[in-house]
Amino acid sequence: MKASIVTIGDEILIGQIVDTNSVSIARKLNQIGITIHRKLSIGDSSDEIRTTLREEISSSGVVIVTGGLGPTKDDITKFTLAEMFSSQLVYNETEGEHIRALLARRGIAFTELNRSQAMLPECCTVLHNAHGTAPGMWFEAENGTIVVSLPGVPFEMEHLMDDEVVPRLKERFELKSIIHLTVITRGIPESILAERIAAWEDALPEYMHLAYLPAPNIVRLRLSAYDIDGVEEESAMRQEIEKLYAIIGDNIVGMEGSTLESAVHDILTERGLRLAIAESCTGGAISSKFTAMAGASAYLMAGVVSYSNDSKCKLLGVDPALIAEHGAVSEQVAIAMAEGAKRVSGADYAISTTGIAGPTGGSKEKPVGTVWMAVATPHGTHAIMRNSGTDRGQIISRASAYAIELLYEHLKSAYTNN
Amino acid sequence: MKASIVTIGDEILIGQIVDTNSVSIARKLNQIGITIHRKLSIGDSSDEIRTTLREEISSSGVVIVTGGLGPTKDDITKFTLAEMFSSQLVYNETEGEHIRALLARRGIAFTELNRSQAMLPECCTVLHNAHGTAPGMWFEAENGTIVVSLPGVPFEMEHLMDDEVVPRLKERFELKSIIHLTVITRGIPESILAERIAAWEDALPEYMHLAYLPAPNIVRLRLSAYDIDGVEEESAMRQEIEKLYAIIGDNIVGMEGSTLESAVHDILTERGLRLAIAESCTGGAISSKFTAMAGASAYLMAGVVSYSNDSKCKLLGVDPALIAEHGAVSEQVAIAMAEGAKRVSGADYAISTTGIAGPTGGSKEKPVGTVWMAVATPHGTHAIMRNSGTDRGQIISRASAYAIELLYEHLKSAYTNN
Repeated sequence: MKASIVTIGDEILIGQIVDTNSVSIARKLNQIGITIHRKLSIGDSSDEIRTTLREEISSSGVVIVTGGLGPTKDDITKFTLAEMFSSQLVYNETEGEHIRALLARRGIAFTELNRSQAMLPECCTVLHNAHGTAPGMWFEAENGTIVVSLPGVPFEMEHLMDDEVVPRLKERFELKSIIHLTVITRGIPESILAERIAAWEDALPEYMHLAYLPAPNIVRLRLSAYDIDGVEEESAMRQEIEKLYAIIGDNIVGMEGSTLESAVHDILTERGLRLAIAESCTGGAISSKFTAMAGASAYLMAGVVSYSNDSKCKLLGVDPALIAEHGAVSEQVAIAMAEGAKRVSGADYAISTTGIAGPTGGSKEKPVGTVWMAVATPHGTHAIMRNSGTDRGQIISRASAYAIELLYEHLKSAYTNN
Repeated sequence: MKASIVTIGDEILIGQIVDTNSVSIARKLNQIGITIHRKLSIGDSSDEIRTTLREEISSSGVVIVTGGLGPTKDDITKFTLAEMFSSQLVYNETEGEHIRALLARRGIAFTELNRSQAMLPECCTVLHNAHGTAPGMWFEAENGTIVVSLPGVPFEMEHLMDDEVVPRLKERFELKSIIHLTVITRGIPESILAERIAAWEDALPEYMHLAYLPAPNIVRLRLSAYDIDGVEEESAMRQEIEKLYAIIGDNIVGMEGSTLESAVHDILTERGLRLAIAESCTGGAISSKFTAMAGASAYLMAGVVSYSNDSKCKLLGVDPALIAEHGAVSEQVAIAMAEGAKRVSGADYAISTTGIAGPTGGSKEKPVGTVWMAVATPHGTHAIMRNSGTDRGQIISRASAYAIELLYEHLKSAYTNN
């Protein structure tokens, strides 16, 4: 079973928003065994919507459309769909009352525009949107293709997918399975990796597809199988992953989801170790990576964003003389920050960053992108310097990754067998 | 002039990555006056690539393709393009030596796979990729449509767009202008907003298009004009925005780029005020929003991620008795955290958050999503409670937005005329 995803909105075409809706829909469809044939983004134009939908209806069994269902003039998806399916718009009492109640709860008056949101094509199955004012719609084309129209607000779209669309698709079609297993490797370039696992890759069964996904410092290897019957093939795939561990185990961080921070999270949690974080140039990015994971409160004692020199001294106990002598961006201050964070929080491990995120503040000796980072461990403190690029966002993100990697290295060598 | 953007990679279709490449390419093309006709994402299949490119070549003057240029077996874009343009692959000495040197600098051996990356279609103009091993390619189709193939690694793609593609497109075509002006509004629902500005909207000149972009608590209004000659129309658009200010000025945060944090950033910077941040459940997310903006070091004294009770007391001077009596998630502790952050850092303003991000830790009185936040100002401290949803990521992101909004409200009423 193949699906197309069509996202509608000029804001996508001009690059004003990042389309995460199609990502979420693709995942949900893959989970129930539906392969995405292609994704398209088009503007708020009824001609474009018509042309694109006709094309996708003829080539896919399911077409999921998002966007263009709001109450304002630029929202034309519903009208175009009604016309395509030669259906009149009729007032839906249930949805109208739901919209009225939803607005009343927020103290907002029900207007003519809101009333128009409850005008829905007669031929469609209305998908109740419990979290918003734009209902979803389920159409069936003449060739049997299902066309689903969902609002573009991510939260509302997600609920409609989970509560209304996925159950209906599972009931409607007999679906096979799709399995993706992704291994995260590090410290080995893509071309070398490909050579080292060439024999293993060549021996993979026909139905397993290998993909390489390179990123700075990391290559993800994804093994995929589509339209399989299930358990047996999945178990065969897991066996292939085990073989892969035997070949390149030293370079494997873990399975997908296993970012470096989640690998650190796992070690700290299992070992009952506690962490503190002292950030200057990364400005909270490292702390927020850890606190985004449920359970971080078990090990994260404290994070300090010591952006000013004063706060480095007051909150972390860094000696002002050290800053005066070596500068805030220095090996000595990185070490003092990590040790200070460890000491004041009572943690077992602490990491620190201090650097120049730019665009100003660089010098010849310490150009923008210079970042010192340190890890304080029960067995001593270690610092490294990494030049992390020239763009502020990139510097923050790379320096965060480097600092977490530094911690990971120390935890790994102390607490795991790899 | 219209363009299509085609991103290639199974990882996009299965929802394994968020496609930011097409966002960046769309912006860069818009800036030079090229309108995006549509964006497509397809899998690593030569059939799909061929079919899609044929279609887009016939309907757009420019087709930008990313992805599938790596050295491994799943990378087939180059071979498919060579076949489509009936061109042989020939070894490019310059690119080969560049790849060899790039790898040598990282201490990596040059392999047969790397050599194959310098095998390029004879008919294309090679676009030198200074930052990676996969060169870009510029083709011209029989109907005059330009087809550009770029690597999928975002950093490399961006440099190739800026250094090679954009200058060539500007030279090749006579391009008109595209202007987008986006106003951020808050505190007014989309349907009410639409009614309030209906007369203004109806009176807009034909060539200006208005779009509503709703998000929780915020509606962005975008005024766009395509294929215009330039200065005069842009000035007319700015006049329309001024009229909009006259109608709904109280609800306008600022122009796009003006997130609430950037509005706060601007006020603090202009007034020479200093800020401190004490985060519990938001775990560094607020600090990292501010530190992502260049110039934050001028006002951000310190951020404290006081995740443990102990760190709330030690780093922020919160009285342990207060936590014992009211619990860490309470109005009293939120206030003590903000006041503590203000005091220890010497800031003029401080904000705090303390809440239950879940999935565990909730109770009947304080369910997951309960977040107390406070702002300490030179004129007193104020706290509010907001229930911020049920999903951990959503709770962190909403609570961050609410806390920043709380600060913004206080700064706005003290320091601006609106």
